[in-house]
Amino acid sequence: MSNLAPLQNLIDHFERMPGIGHKTAQRLAFYILGLEEAEAREFSQAIIDAHTKIKQCKICCNLADEELCPICKSTVRDKSVICVVEDPRDVAAIERTHEYNGTYHVLHGAISPMDNVGPDQIRIKELIARLSDDTVEEVIMATNPTVEGEATAMYISRLLKPMGITVSRLAYGVPVGADLEYADEVTLSRALEGRSLI
Amino acid sequence: MSNLAPLQNLIDHFERMPGIGHKTAQRLAFYILGLEEAEAREFSQAIIDAHTKIKQCKICCNLADEELCPICKSTVRDKSVICVVEDPRDVAAIERTHEYNGTYHVLHGAISPMDNVGPDQIRIKELIARLSDDTVEEVIMATNPTVEGEATAMYISRLLKPMGITVSRLAYGVPVGADLEYADEVTLSRALEGRSLI
Repeated sequence: MSNLAPLQNLIDHFERMPGIGHKTAQRLAFYILGLEEAEAREFSQAIIDAHTKIKQCKICCNLADEELCPICKSTVRDKSVICVVEDPRDVAAIERTHEYNGTYHVLHGAISPMDNVGPDQIRIKELIARLSDDTVEEVIMATNPTVEGEATAMYISRLLKPMGITVSRLAYGVPVGADLEYADEVTLSRALEGRSLI
Repeated sequence: MSNLAPLQNLIDHFERMPGIGHKTAQRLAFYILGLEEAEAREFSQAIIDAHTKIKQCKICCNLADEELCPICKSTVRDKSVICVVEDPRDVAAIERTHEYNGTYHVLHGAISPMDNVGPDQIRIKELIARLSDDTVEEVIMATNPTVEGEATAMYISRLLKPMGITVSRLAYGVPVGADLEYADEVTLSRALEGRSLI
């Protein structure tokens, strides 16, 4: 279909998306062609809207459509605890547990020298700035359980400890509902290490 | 993230696409958020462009950005043969073989009573109209080898035969490069039926 420039252009845009190969990009482009005129306009507008209306919260760097995100604006959230995550989606995941009443800090990435991401490329400065007024007592590191997430947690904890702030880390262990047989050795040994009395 | 209406709206749009589940829709929406402003605008415009600039060829109903598609406009293509396919993508697939020099007719679907698609919902009328001036000698049915594609091919061939037009069907058989062991029985028995002398 390369003779149709507008279609090829749309396919190219889809193909640049993560996890979308050529065949899928083609399928999605044809889906767009098959939409009603009004639906296509709405879709197009939704892209612009998401881009122009969504900013980062001035405090926690989470996504927000105002100056502050609903969590930082809330008066019932405990401002003395900050949970540090890599990504806005992680905030959504923790919120779904309904177990956490503190605030968040979204790093927008993890330190990864392989990908040229150093401490300055993620929102660590903004986190340090939040700790200057002594209201924060604990920082919970909830970066991903990967090499990069781990390194980021270690890096930040070394910065915070001299400031007299408690730094904790999410527990490692076997996921609830999973089969022990399929757990990898690292996870299992971490689960053993972190065992608790019953 | 449901507290951010523009983001949720974009996720909803992606989720309506074929083969895109909730997690993927979320991933794609976050990818859009991460785009540069200009890229997001281009993507948005690409959707509108594909929709407004691409029409159907007046003759063969294939996608075209002018009145006629390049194949119908061409003077070197053999106008006495029409290859009938279900979808514009099928035209692209056959063109890639570089073995066919006739024209096409795109039905935009197949007869499927289960999905409420009857002969009037696909471009059969347009095909019949093309046969009125006696230039067409052969119609090759290249609908999909599915129940619906088969039924559509049968339906059309019954309409065309009384008009004195040769109607043929793509050969069934084992796909080149595949393993006989994995061929299904129907394909194998069709391949036996259609065996040729060597």
